[in-house]
Amino acid sequence: MHDTPEDDWPRRVAILGVGLLGGSVAMSIRRRRPNCVFVGYSRDAARLAGAVDRGVIGRATGSIEEACRDADVVVVATPVDRIAGMVIEAARHSPAGCLITDVGSTKSGIVANVEEDPVAMAKFVAAHPIAGSEKSGSQHAVADLFDGKVVVLTPQSTEQMADQVAGTAMVGRADHFWKMTGGTTITMSVADHDAHLAAVSHVPHLVSALVARMVPPAARSLVGSGWTDITRVAAGDPEMWTAICRENRTAIAGELARLASELDGLRQIIQDADDVLLLDWLAHAKRTKESIQSAPTSGRRRFDAD
Amino acid sequence: MHDTPEDDWPRRVAILGVGLLGGSVAMSIRRRRPNCVFVGYSRDAARLAGAVDRGVIGRATGSIEEACRDADVVVVATPVDRIAGMVIEAARHSPAGCLITDVGSTKSGIVANVEEDPVAMAKFVAAHPIAGSEKSGSQHAVADLFDGKVVVLTPQSTEQMADQVAGTAMVGRADHFWKMTGGTTITMSVADHDAHLAAVSHVPHLVSALVARMVPPAARSLVGSGWTDITRVAAGDPEMWTAICRENRTAIAGELARLASELDGLRQIIQDADDVLLLDWLAHAKRTKESIQSAPTSGRRRFDAD
Repeated sequence: MHDTPEDDWPRRVAILGVGLLGGSVAMSIRRRRPNCVFVGYSRDAARLAGAVDRGVIGRATGSIEEACRDADVVVVATPVDRIAGMVIEAARHSPAGCLITDVGSTKSGIVANVEEDPVAMAKFVAAHPIAGSEKSGSQHAVADLFDGKVVVLTPQSTEQMADQVAGTAMVGRADHFWKMTGGTTITMSVADHDAHLAAVSHVPHLVSALVARMVPPAARSLVGSGWTDITRVAAGDPEMWTAICRENRTAIAGELARLASELDGLRQIIQDADDVLLLDWLAHAKRTKESIQSAPTSGRRRFDAD
Repeated sequence: MHDTPEDDWPRRVAILGVGLLGGSVAMSIRRRRPNCVFVGYSRDAARLAGAVDRGVIGRATGSIEEACRDADVVVVATPVDRIAGMVIEAARHSPAGCLITDVGSTKSGIVANVEEDPVAMAKFVAAHPIAGSEKSGSQHAVADLFDGKVVVLTPQSTEQMADQVAGTAMVGRADHFWKMTGGTTITMSVADHDAHLAAVSHVPHLVSALVARMVPPAARSLVGSGWTDITRVAAGDPEMWTAICRENRTAIAGELARLASELDGLRQIIQDADDVLLLDWLAHAKRTKESIQSAPTSGRRRFDAD
């Protein structure tokens, strides 16, 4: 394990939005940087006090300016529709060279908005750790949330940057930071990220909610463990998911169209009583599921950081 | 805890099909009837020998006749499309007064077929324990699989029976037997059972497979815990699920049509960018999910037997 020259970086991290994800970022980084100061910002003073009481963050403030002043890193962990505005404000109050990153599960809208502010864009490297829970709030934050999980970085092309060298350095800093959480970083374009996430996260979430909504009242006592698993994420925060759908509407609409078409194909198989085709259809689903279950990035723990 | 007059009933139970469910029935009943003899039947001698080696069943035979001779109870735990034939054969070889029950997750086809044989129907009380796993095989059988779980009994109306008194007694025996597994019994018509199960189990299973099939190759590394839960049951046995779809085709086709219609409604909300409606739609899913999670029949353990 050998660190970059800055062995004590970061010394001060601002967490804007101290919920499940923001809290877990602080707790995960603290394992490697016990002396790092984590300053939490929230509009909700009670929530913030709770996070300090539980030791999730070291200091709390109701001022973004105060949180970002002297910060080496600012992590924006609010709902996706508030991220771009927070990044731009954090850029205004943070020192030169400060890394600003986020945890949003959509990227196009955020990056497009931040790009309108060159000062913010010079500090910002968009990120999406593929980790979370249907629970929310810093009381559910854990230090190992990101261990072995994929963290997608979607830096804008450095060719497009005013200062290529600084841009590349900032991406390297983001890579280093997210590896310190225990995560494994990969880089992807904003468009690919949003299309892929619609397919493997956003539309599956909507499908889970669809299944939950469709239980006939008289059948409530008949749900089993299959239904319970399929609908777990349907208990997620409706406000958060409405924001995700707003931010990634185009990709989600495209995936929903694909889903409707695939569903039509399945209905035809059932209607035709074509059991040979159905067996093949189900076997394909099983193979895909099992190949992904055994993929190294899913489930297993890896420590790639530092 | 007070038993019926027959305190030592059953003394001998035949398990036709020693897999996850059949094996778990034996293991669960053994907790209350340690002296009961469990005789397993399977066409697969190696699988049967494994179940004896692991102590899941006490004796093994490749003959249905031998398994059912002297049995107090016969449990048919094969894939659904083979259950009716096994029930009829078991009726021929079992003593008068023997209870025959099953574990099939579809009921209409099975009951219709068995009804054509009055001798078999007099002994048969159809059952469906709402318990299982995406795993199969008696190596995954556990004694507490049915603890606190709902077991649906779908006895034909006793008015239709040749011998109403005997019919009622047999239903009582089935009720007693399934409570001994640790389960909670409820009674329902065959048609209601199949319609409800299509809604809360069969179609959700197909939806899970649909989500698994739809992962774009480039997005495989981006799946998170939500996708993993939604697609857990997609790893289930394709042969078993093809048989379920064959047996419950009409109800499943009806539920798939309802799903397609609900999906159209969701696509319209997304397309219209109607975030107020979307928030309400998601909040309804969350309320339904959470109300069912906290229902006493789901998840928690209860011991209603005896």
